[in-house]
Amino acid sequence: MNKIEHIGIAVKDIAVSNELFSKLFGEPSYKTETVESEGVKTSFFKVGANKIELLEATKIDSPIARFIDKKGEGIHHIAFDVDDIEAEINRLKDQDFEVLNEVSKKGADNKLVAFLHPKSTNGVLIELCQEIKP
Amino acid sequence: MNKIEHIGIAVKDIAVSNELFSKLFGEPSYKTETVESEGVKTSFFKVGANKIELLEATKIDSPIARFIDKKGEGIHHIAFDVDDIEAEINRLKDQDFEVLNEVSKKGADNKLVAFLHPKSTNGVLIELCQEIKP
Repeated sequence: MNKIEHIGIAVKDIAVSNELFSKLFGEPSYKTETVESEGVKTSFFKVGANKIELLEATKIDSPIARFIDKKGEGIHHIAFDVDDIEAEINRLKDQDFEVLNEVSKKGADNKLVAFLHPKSTNGVLIELCQEIKP
Repeated sequence: MNKIEHIGIAVKDIAVSNELFSKLFGEPSYKTETVESEGVKTSFFKVGANKIELLEATKIDSPIARFIDKKGEGIHHIAFDVDDIEAEINRLKDQDFEVLNEVSKKGADNKLVAFLHPKSTNGVLIELCQEIKP
């Protein structure tokens, strides 16, 4: 794993939170993107080589909506940048981590992504992500 | 803010979690440190230029013990590296963020630290940290 690629933060209203995090970082969001398959609207901020991803649910039954219902707004996941996501999925499965999707899928921000179940990682939802090269 | 310095993860048993995160990263913790004033035992892992800090309570009434009682194990805070923590505290107070300690204090890993109250930051406990130069 190369670095923390981003931290995902579940928010109720991305317009309100964009303003809040712009004040926090002293810089506006540089990108917004909706991922229909995940029922989520995202907004990205840069902090050096790392990013913060705000996540607002677009559907009442999406994972982000359920997370906020249960826990309120807050940190949702940590994403680590990897070079070879399929190799990393296999390495972690061999180490008894529970991988939620056994093959990577297309996520936001031009990435292939896979998630580890929090019950195998101390309550932390972990995303692996690999940049899709043209 | 220069980068995500570390992500703090609250754990019940740091020995068990050290083993888990060593398997996750493929590398062992490089440092452990107890901060008596915060009632916490810490363990650090490197992921590129970022770190993961595991936190185990050393007292039954410490902030980490209370966090785990309320929310269970999981992500506790995000720490951002800053060059001038007192200037950053003042900038954020001017932007209506609630700073928990108005002057920085000594934290783990040779840092001056200050925290922002999660109620002013979308439910996210944010730490500012500045390396103490010799």
